[in-house]
Amino acid sequence: MDDRYFEDWKVGERLETGARTLSEAEIVRFAREYDPQPFHLDPEAAKRSPFGRLVASGWQTTALTMRLIVESGIFGRRGGIGLGVDELRWLKPVYPGDTLRVVSEVESMRASPEKPSGICRFRLMTLNQDDVLVMTHVAIVLVPRRPAGSGA
Amino acid sequence: MDDRYFEDWKVGERLETGARTLSEAEIVRFAREYDPQPFHLDPEAAKRSPFGRLVASGWQTTALTMRLIVESGIFGRRGGIGLGVDELRWLKPVYPGDTLRVVSEVESMRASPEKPSGICRFRLMTLNQDDVLVMTHVAIVLVPRRPAGSGA
Repeated sequence: MDDRYFEDWKVGERLETGARTLSEAEIVRFAREYDPQPFHLDPEAAKRSPFGRLVASGWQTTALTMRLIVESGIFGRRGGIGLGVDELRWLKPVYPGDTLRVVSEVESMRASPEKPSGICRFRLMTLNQDDVLVMTHVAIVLVPRRPAGSGA
Repeated sequence: MDDRYFEDWKVGERLETGARTLSEAEIVRFAREYDPQPFHLDPEAAKRSPFGRLVASGWQTTALTMRLIVESGIFGRRGGIGLGVDELRWLKPVYPGDTLRVVSEVESMRASPEKPSGICRFRLMTLNQDDVLVMTHVAIVLVPRRPAGSGA
């Protein structure tokens, strides 16, 4: 997918990304920089937390989901501009060694004739290696419309 | 704030975090790992993007917002467990050198008598050094109730 325009998407279209494994070192490194809570930082302290063991920051799950989406090339080489997110839910913990992948489905699309971009709402499902849904959210993305005269 | 329980919060309570500056190097490092799109990775390519210059990944803004919240001690030393996020909106770009801070307001609270935790919805406003709102979201957080017999 080189260039991908608003006109190339359709409601209900489903795509799946590749997968990535999150190591304990990556979880701790992210936590030190962005979410320094005991259950993300230290396996010993995490044992005494409600999780019972080390878990990834939910924000690292969102960031890794983004990476998988970008790597998949779903949005073409110019990228997608995120306007926002609705209904993000962290459903299950992500543990060291978990392998995540993302399934994306176009929920709705709208465009105004006079605007150079349309808005797509993508329902994103992040799953682990056991096909358990660990996170869902709706990404609201600005997608450029096909320039006039650039062919079908 | 050492231990902070559900009973210690009230609707409308407003708190403000400290501030942090995001460098170009931090923006590029985050983008390489989690959001490798041209306008987050490379100042030259970013000039040709809709932003016209390098901007931080929106997911880095969420992560930095989390860091400011954790550092502020708002949730006490045991941390807060995020269940999800509603209505996240990236309102303005975040540029290298921008200094962000967060204002938090309790939007609503609910608890069931038989459950050990309540649920608070916090409206979070992330502002830059010019007091411009760059991001807003509602964080849905599980907050432990005060254990019976632990005093007022």
